[in-house]
Amino acid sequence: MTYNLVLLRHGESEWNQKNLFTGWVDVPLTDKGRTEAVRAGELITEAGLAPDVLYTSRLKRAINTASLALEAADLSWIDVKRSWRLNERHYGALQGKNKKEIRDEFGEEQFMIWRRSYDTPPPVLDDASQFSQAGEARYRNLGDAIPRTECLADVVERLLPYWYDQIVPDLQLGRTVLVTAHGNSLRALVKHLDGISDADIPSLNIPTGIPLHYELDESLTPVAPGGQYLDPDAAQAAIGQVASQGR
Amino acid sequence: MTYNLVLLRHGESEWNQKNLFTGWVDVPLTDKGRTEAVRAGELITEAGLAPDVLYTSRLKRAINTASLALEAADLSWIDVKRSWRLNERHYGALQGKNKKEIRDEFGEEQFMIWRRSYDTPPPVLDDASQFSQAGEARYRNLGDAIPRTECLADVVERLLPYWYDQIVPDLQLGRTVLVTAHGNSLRALVKHLDGISDADIPSLNIPTGIPLHYELDESLTPVAPGGQYLDPDAAQAAIGQVASQGR
Repeated sequence: MTYNLVLLRHGESEWNQKNLFTGWVDVPLTDKGRTEAVRAGELITEAGLAPDVLYTSRLKRAINTASLALEAADLSWIDVKRSWRLNERHYGALQGKNKKEIRDEFGEEQFMIWRRSYDTPPPVLDDASQFSQAGEARYRNLGDAIPRTECLADVVERLLPYWYDQIVPDLQLGRTVLVTAHGNSLRALVKHLDGISDADIPSLNIPTGIPLHYELDESLTPVAPGGQYLDPDAAQAAIGQVASQGR
Repeated sequence: MTYNLVLLRHGESEWNQKNLFTGWVDVPLTDKGRTEAVRAGELITEAGLAPDVLYTSRLKRAINTASLALEAADLSWIDVKRSWRLNERHYGALQGKNKKEIRDEFGEEQFMIWRRSYDTPPPVLDDASQFSQAGEARYRNLGDAIPRTECLADVVERLLPYWYDQIVPDLQLGRTVLVTAHGNSLRALVKHLDGISDADIPSLNIPTGIPLHYELDESLTPVAPGGQYLDPDAAQAAIGQVASQGR
């Protein structure tokens, strides 16, 4: 018996388009992002991978991507679970800042450390910032433990409890699971699934809006390392674009 | 301490507009229905009744109404639970039939018995009908116990276990609960909440798209019988229209 897991990065958001660091700021999809989401639902249907349960972050760009994809697949009725543990990486003091301006101001090396270093988080975001989520009702279960910045290692650490305690049991019931989340929370999950090293993870990019299917064996190891994009050509083209952000 | 419960009947669906018996047939909202849903979200915001958790049926007209209302209220991130126990009444062999034609064919008395009798269900719908839901993956947890027709008494009977075991515990945690459902599943709930008799329930109508707020005391009795529509004038006008369906 194998398990079916489908990962979906949200479609283009307004801040993807404006080239801003987004993190936990709750920005909506663009029209292009909505179109990507509908296409993702069609790809899921064509692949015969109808999910039995949906997991999303607490951010509307992932939630709306899932809604549009499931509507296109006529699966709006499936069970839904949401958690902050699937949220995008908290980008700390970079949230709301333009990627190109940060790169110009701090230089390529510092920019890439903040963007891709596995274990160096950006500076902490002040709670008084307009881009802070501290105090939001949405995260009240965290109290003062709400993140104020995160590196990818932090995302792995907060994601894995949810993976083991919520998502894996659903897979083990034979359910096809759809996880609709973010560039970095999905990179964290893929790092775990494929056993990618801390040194190699910076070069992994996940494109928006293209479902990534993992078939997992009973030990939760991918049958095919890296999984299978449901539109491989579009994925390949998009991965190049993601890598060039901030240029 | 009192509890806050908000009931919302889905906005106009394509079959409301065509005057067809819908029941468990999964038809989408009209543009008017989507507009109603957005307005419902605005009314919830204006009333300061931000829900902490959403309950919906398994039918897209309720699910999409909730998505649009919550998006308008910037609350897409709240927890969601879905159940067939909140579905519309199964209309049996009437599903897919025109209300006016049924009235003309069978007469006013039989029409009103099927539409409003508390304990007389319409004839059973054959599993081979294009309007049957028997065998759908969505309801596989029911096996052969899936309804093939229901009277309102049947809806009360299948709704109350969910009310007591899922919704009430959320209310008792102090959560504001939004239930987005259907004309008859909400009539069943209101009958229970307000202690409306079997004889009086036929004359109760619930309009589409206008949130109905119940404040409940610790014994789960409404503080104000009948609750409070968040737009009382629109509710009053719409109730007259619902009552005239099939004319």
